[in-house]
Amino acid sequence: MEKGRLLYEGKAKQLFETDDENILFVSYKDSATAFNGEKKEDIDGKGILNNKITTILFEQLKSKGIESHFVEQISDNEQLVRKVDIIPLEVVVRNIAAGSLSKRLGIKEGTPLKHTIVEFYYKDDELGDPLLTNAHIELLALATPEEIETLQTKALEINQVLQPIFKEIGVTLIDFKLEFGKTANGEILLADEISPDTCRLWDDKTNNKLDKDVFRRNLGSLTEVYEIILSRLGGLSK
Amino acid sequence: MEKGRLLYEGKAKQLFETDDENILFVSYKDSATAFNGEKKEDIDGKGILNNKITTILFEQLKSKGIESHFVEQISDNEQLVRKVDIIPLEVVVRNIAAGSLSKRLGIKEGTPLKHTIVEFYYKDDELGDPLLTNAHIELLALATPEEIETLQTKALEINQVLQPIFKEIGVTLIDFKLEFGKTANGEILLADEISPDTCRLWDDKTNNKLDKDVFRRNLGSLTEVYEIILSRLGGLSK
Repeated sequence: MEKGRLLYEGKAKQLFETDDENILFVSYKDSATAFNGEKKEDIDGKGILNNKITTILFEQLKSKGIESHFVEQISDNEQLVRKVDIIPLEVVVRNIAAGSLSKRLGIKEGTPLKHTIVEFYYKDDELGDPLLTNAHIELLALATPEEIETLQTKALEINQVLQPIFKEIGVTLIDFKLEFGKTANGEILLADEISPDTCRLWDDKTNNKLDKDVFRRNLGSLTEVYEIILSRLGGLSK
Repeated sequence: MEKGRLLYEGKAKQLFETDDENILFVSYKDSATAFNGEKKEDIDGKGILNNKITTILFEQLKSKGIESHFVEQISDNEQLVRKVDIIPLEVVVRNIAAGSLSKRLGIKEGTPLKHTIVEFYYKDDELGDPLLTNAHIELLALATPEEIETLQTKALEINQVLQPIFKEIGVTLIDFKLEFGKTANGEILLADEISPDTCRLWDDKTNNKLDKDVFRRNLGSLTEVYEIILSRLGGLSK
């Protein structure tokens, strides 16, 4: 499949047209950003790691009956995906308090939540990706009440699949961010990526952070910890 | 009724025991605060104005079947109220975009919302009164899902009564903050105050702000605009 015109360039990926109007070409970039782009760095090899990890996780989700936009990996840092209209919501699933939840609610990082919660943030860099209530989502017409319900249900199902995948490799899935899109026929499909950029992953034995917090908080080499995740997921040879 | 021991001192009011364990004595203070207490000033006469305005509004609500903790006004700046356990939620009703909603969602101040929304904020000065989703409220055990529903319903009913009261005096009720408490038998009751400290009130003709934004944004004399509200509500002689 031919890589066509650049359609969109985000902070971590580029999207290109292909000769199939329903398929896009995704190229994972080597840039790391945090705090709404305020901290930014080029990190060799990051794109490859996230492409490979996302591929493994989307394939595992598919094997458990959860479809996504993912079609196939076609090179170290590239994959093909179905074209969807991204819903401008970041859907965040939290099993254990960390990051902005800890700050917002005053709950110490690492405290297990009495039940998993789903939050929605407005995917809008200018506004700083603010937290939204369901009323805000309806007000901004970002999703209908039924769609909010669907997103919430799908997010919790994905959590049910991802938690044991990580548990098996000695990692706790603290929280993660998902994005969804709509296909031409209105189906809501998991999209974007699932990687240490979008998950908080803590080593079960050492409690070490194996995710983008290493970059956000200057805790060491980002690629070293992303390689640990890829390796434990069995993906180093792919 | 005797004024007893000081039970609680907030930013705008003091609460005292009385010789009836179910009744508290509220004294409205002359201090104005904003931005979580960062801006603070003593303003002569403010306590009297808010006590009188709250009295009128709680009495009008009662005449329309909406109970509150209010018992009676007993002096210029004092009233008696039923003792309730305050639910630590600020319940905000918004008819028109302003303040933090405009900032959060990027909606220009003064834009009518396509429908009235209710928001909940955590009444916690240390955390800066953060916005909460229903999931957060349940997680923190601040209210049950049924109680959240009750608060939302009551807040919208109160809006239905307050809007025409203000409309009749040439003022648009942009948004307002309510607090609720629980009585000993678990009933949820409107509490706190309803005043230009807790409402955004814009003059219909001039669009002038007749509320605490005058203080927050240094737009002139706070007591002058609070007096306009009290006067139009027919309360200057009381």
